[in-house]
Amino acid sequence: MKNITGSKPLNLSLYRLALIHSSVAIQTPNQNFRLSNERLEYLGDAVLGLIIAEYLYKKFPYKDEGFLTEIRSRIVNRESLNQLAHKIGLTELIEYETSIQIRGNQSIAGDALEAFIGAVYLDRGFLFCRNFVLKRLLQAHLDLDKIIQTNLNYKSLLIEYAQKNGKNIDFVLIEEKSYRNTTTFTVEVRLNGKSISQGMGQNKKKAEQAAAEKALQTLNVSLK
Amino acid sequence: MKNITGSKPLNLSLYRLALIHSSVAIQTPNQNFRLSNERLEYLGDAVLGLIIAEYLYKKFPYKDEGFLTEIRSRIVNRESLNQLAHKIGLTELIEYETSIQIRGNQSIAGDALEAFIGAVYLDRGFLFCRNFVLKRLLQAHLDLDKIIQTNLNYKSLLIEYAQKNGKNIDFVLIEEKSYRNTTTFTVEVRLNGKSISQGMGQNKKKAEQAAAEKALQTLNVSLK
Repeated sequence: MKNITGSKPLNLSLYRLALIHSSVAIQTPNQNFRLSNERLEYLGDAVLGLIIAEYLYKKFPYKDEGFLTEIRSRIVNRESLNQLAHKIGLTELIEYETSIQIRGNQSIAGDALEAFIGAVYLDRGFLFCRNFVLKRLLQAHLDLDKIIQTNLNYKSLLIEYAQKNGKNIDFVLIEEKSYRNTTTFTVEVRLNGKSISQGMGQNKKKAEQAAAEKALQTLNVSLK
Repeated sequence: MKNITGSKPLNLSLYRLALIHSSVAIQTPNQNFRLSNERLEYLGDAVLGLIIAEYLYKKFPYKDEGFLTEIRSRIVNRESLNQLAHKIGLTELIEYETSIQIRGNQSIAGDALEAFIGAVYLDRGFLFCRNFVLKRLLQAHLDLDKIIQTNLNYKSLLIEYAQKNGKNIDFVLIEEKSYRNTTTFTVEVRLNGKSISQGMGQNKKKAEQAAAEKALQTLNVSLK
């Protein structure tokens, strides 16, 4: 554990619990309650959510909450957490029923990492845990620039393009059509007030993405 | 502000920003960035999520993460946050375009409360903020017992429905399957002797809840 957090755990049993997958949960005298890392995962998910939210909030003072939410979800998504768990050597320590992995449970490692973060939080408090997450996970193992670039958020790419070229870009909701249970949104992209593309989608965000993608094609902007 | 948090703000501008709805956002020199409480709301949402997650984690050491997640979502849902914002007198302080409320934007108050929590967090740190949320919001204004009881206890809702309509309802355990450490229960709901749904779970109670929930859907009984 010390190798992972950089400091000796105070309450080792928390870290042990974080590594017990529900497939090998321990039966307790309380019939309806079995000990596994699921509760710690629930807590760690919230801890990680706040730490990354604050980190991005401060790092990008001029980005809107849509950008922040998007980048956070790329950092804390299942695949990213699985990879992080492997990189810090957590995966080998997890106890689980081996038959389970074969059946395709793909989040054992990432879930255990969240539980581990929950354990660090309970054991050492918020500030220590924040430092652990930022230094030993985020900065040590994630390439934030790459995460942001690997983007394909067409809307933000378009906005970026407009900024660089000193142009005004507007996303205008021009239609919202409901039929039975389905609503279709149509959004128009205007460059310096002139319509250059339209996109449709089942919500405003999707319509914006579709419209932005077309606009980028029209403008011949290459995607990184 | 002092009346709300119980302590003098250090950085008043944060609290002011928390009260600026996007409908009256302030244009900045950066063309694509307008100042409003949306970024603080994103942060405050994560702060609140962690505080409530930890509170429930510690208060209910023998409840599983499904219960904790459910109760948390009842506490931080839009309606609950709107009510809290009203109760602490935050609503009157929000600046927004008055035409907006008419168009049915129902989350202005709750969103501002989340932004306010984000401001408290940035201004005074995690521990102060946690204390503020637990003492001045949760314990002062929410009845946790009631929130838990107002329980979507599907089984009792279903029994209530059957009673009202003069029908017989039975919960029948039809299967109990063990595989290594895990046992799965299957329960069938019978209305006047006729099967209307089945549910599975890791114990009988959960299987009953799952079966009752499906039965309520099948019967088109609306949940309060």
